[in-house]
Amino acid sequence: MGATGIRGTFFDFIDDPWKHLGREQDAARFHADGLLVVEDGIITDFGAYDAVAPRHAGLEITAIEGRIILPGFIDGHIHFPQTRVLGAYGEQLLPWLQKWIFPEELKYKDRNYARDGAKRFFDLLLASGTTTCQAFTSSSPVSTEEFFEEATRRNMRVIAGLTGIDRNAPDDFIDTPDNFYRDSKALIARYHNSGRNLYAVTPRFAYGASPELLQRCEQLKQEHPDCWVNTHISENPAECRGVLEQHPGAEDYLGVYEKYGLVGPKFSGGHGVWLSDGEFRRMSASGAAVVFCPCSNLFLGSGLFRIGRATDPAHRVRMSFGTDMGGGNRFSMLNVLDDAYKVGMCNNTLLDGSVDPSRQDAAEAERNKMSPYRGFWSITLGGAEGLYLDDRLGNFNPGKEADFVALDWNAGPMAQPWHQSLVVGDGGPKTVEEAADLLFAVMMVSDERAVDETWIMGKRLYKKS
Amino acid sequence: MGATGIRGTFFDFIDDPWKHLGREQDAARFHADGLLVVEDGIITDFGAYDAVAPRHAGLEITAIEGRIILPGFIDGHIHFPQTRVLGAYGEQLLPWLQKWIFPEELKYKDRNYARDGAKRFFDLLLASGTTTCQAFTSSSPVSTEEFFEEATRRNMRVIAGLTGIDRNAPDDFIDTPDNFYRDSKALIARYHNSGRNLYAVTPRFAYGASPELLQRCEQLKQEHPDCWVNTHISENPAECRGVLEQHPGAEDYLGVYEKYGLVGPKFSGGHGVWLSDGEFRRMSASGAAVVFCPCSNLFLGSGLFRIGRATDPAHRVRMSFGTDMGGGNRFSMLNVLDDAYKVGMCNNTLLDGSVDPSRQDAAEAERNKMSPYRGFWSITLGGAEGLYLDDRLGNFNPGKEADFVALDWNAGPMAQPWHQSLVVGDGGPKTVEEAADLLFAVMMVSDERAVDETWIMGKRLYKKS
Repeated sequence: MGATGIRGTFFDFIDDPWKHLGREQDAARFHADGLLVVEDGIITDFGAYDAVAPRHAGLEITAIEGRIILPGFIDGHIHFPQTRVLGAYGEQLLPWLQKWIFPEELKYKDRNYARDGAKRFFDLLLASGTTTCQAFTSSSPVSTEEFFEEATRRNMRVIAGLTGIDRNAPDDFIDTPDNFYRDSKALIARYHNSGRNLYAVTPRFAYGASPELLQRCEQLKQEHPDCWVNTHISENPAECRGVLEQHPGAEDYLGVYEKYGLVGPKFSGGHGVWLSDGEFRRMSASGAAVVFCPCSNLFLGSGLFRIGRATDPAHRVRMSFGTDMGGGNRFSMLNVLDDAYKVGMCNNTLLDGSVDPSRQDAAEAERNKMSPYRGFWSITLGGAEGLYLDDRLGNFNPGKEADFVALDWNAGPMAQPWHQSLVVGDGGPKTVEEAADLLFAVMMVSDERAVDETWIMGKRLYKKS
Repeated sequence: MGATGIRGTFFDFIDDPWKHLGREQDAARFHADGLLVVEDGIITDFGAYDAVAPRHAGLEITAIEGRIILPGFIDGHIHFPQTRVLGAYGEQLLPWLQKWIFPEELKYKDRNYARDGAKRFFDLLLASGTTTCQAFTSSSPVSTEEFFEEATRRNMRVIAGLTGIDRNAPDDFIDTPDNFYRDSKALIARYHNSGRNLYAVTPRFAYGASPELLQRCEQLKQEHPDCWVNTHISENPAECRGVLEQHPGAEDYLGVYEKYGLVGPKFSGGHGVWLSDGEFRRMSASGAAVVFCPCSNLFLGSGLFRIGRATDPAHRVRMSFGTDMGGGNRFSMLNVLDDAYKVGMCNNTLLDGSVDPSRQDAAEAERNKMSPYRGFWSITLGGAEGLYLDDRLGNFNPGKEADFVALDWNAGPMAQPWHQSLVVGDGGPKTVEEAADLLFAVMMVSDERAVDETWIMGKRLYKKS
């Protein structure tokens, strides 16, 4: 089909705001009146309306008014089969898995249940403004198939994989390394690079993996080097100890994955709350990424992720953000930014010398402040970089896939409009600074109610009713 | 007028769940089909419909279906003049006050602005299901007057007072101790016990108070011993140090308030994040209360309030919960419970020995788990006890004021109904345990969208549109 245009107020990023201390707006790009030109789902032109429109005479244009349009949100760590049990009471990670999570995920062996769950899951993503996710499925290939089938129906860019586990889980939930290998191979053949689907070799976590299972993951990654690798790392203190007991010979948690050649570009370790300075440095050097999941880290009491260590320019670690739904109690990446800000401010206090003078580090304290620039970059372009998808999406550069969201800065709790009226009047934001101020309130005061429209490959798939 | 009845599913408390370890449901009271009889705004009868209805032949009954009805929520610490600036970026407590808060609160010297702000504020409370609050106003009596006038119009039970500050704030914001005393006396005469209004002597915090200002507070409390006292305590580490520098002779923060005879029944110290064990014990012995404000504590990076110390049965401290809006980024007490749960789980991990073995305390770790029983008690009967209002409200005992909320357990994020369907079908909860499970999801997954109706003195003042 021919090209179409979307006219509105656009806000995206061209660089990492953490690299622009004191001038974060230089990392952002803002058009109060912009035009995005899309053909076959790909962005072909973008910029100020007055500059771009003359290049496309006769273009069919959809105007989105009274909204800020951002690239679609990226959720780097989410558990597709936990949708129904998000927000389950009262346990830290390991007992929580046994009590709440494995029983629900088991239901995804049933194809009807998995298919219904997939439909609900993707509806929830779109209603939250999430256009790309990296997902865990269950240990049954049925769950992985239904996940990719639904993603295909919606033409969404996703990363996922059969989620392998052979220890510390119920007998009817685990599977053998050989079966995991065989099933993963079949899924890779069927889904990796099929449409917009991408495959991740997915050992759930080292705590639930025998050496044999990790060897099979190593083999899969060697045979399919362009596949992603998705797992968990250093989430909870008891879990960290347990992993070292199960994998003697590894000096630390990262070392377990390094031993099997899994750590490098396209590797995502979710959480990383308890990573040491040395592990951060090795992750940085290898090109691996960490996925920060603050809702979950707080909900399960895992702790405060050291944002300022991951963003230390001396050893910057690629970083995506994630809901970790259902350890995370909400689907919305906006709620993730709320909790990310709170984790960061708690770290900021712990690093300013007022609590423990020996821990004072003003620069690291500052890196923990989750400005709207840092926050929204992390769930768009930064999240894409963390997932090695930034060649395909994350901002409005021509050549990228046209996934985006239209946010209503006044929508959400009743308190929002009067608050936002301190920033802008009816005409909407005119500068990047005004847009950023509005977006900060969206992340801290509102939630998915601010998501008014979600578009995938230049087509609107969700409109808030 | 005559009596009216409200029929529906009722959930309230008769005791403190922390006193019923392992059998928290014994502290709660549940009627799947209950009847509340109200006359002139006061509860005259309550219980199972089949038991109560025969006692009131011809009673005009309103049925509230498909909802759980709880006592109205109590917000023990909220800043009326910060409504417009909730969620302001990037600072810990002290610089945040100077940059964002004092400039906005100054506007409340203007009566029109204060009147408009009061209307908005009370609309927001009711939409959040909050039926009683203890509020800070600004340093201008105009703000206190407009607050009480609006509360009077709505016939709501509130505690508030002129918020005194004479240090560390802009010149046009502070006032002299003499003026504070004079204006407080006038406000007490006009509003204390006028209708449902109650007055609190309100030194904003020791960091902003000269010894003379605190002496005037001491005098006001001596002259009006039945007034409340509302202030802040031990919120932020730098603030704590500053207070001791400003008030030499006091051994700790609580000691500053003790020196002026302010600590005792009806004293509320907001936050208490950095209270020592000794301060907790003294607060317990004196009958003073702490107000836990987790949204704010996280938003300003103040730290993790030690829930398990305050609830230690050896020295139980009365405890209300508060939004601390605008240090808290949301108006809803349900969001407060979300963050309270998260603070509690983080404490739980820090106390289980897995991080620092010398800090292991299994009992204190357990007291940090914010079950739905503990959470909803804390914002109803427990909150009332913290504010010495439990003779008048907090549950459905006859003789108490008929303030209540009707919650829709399916309302909120799109994910909620499928999640709740694991607990109940269309018929709603039949047992207290089912109700508690539904309420946990309300606090962790939803927000004020779950508040469907809010009633004050037996009249419905809010219905969600």
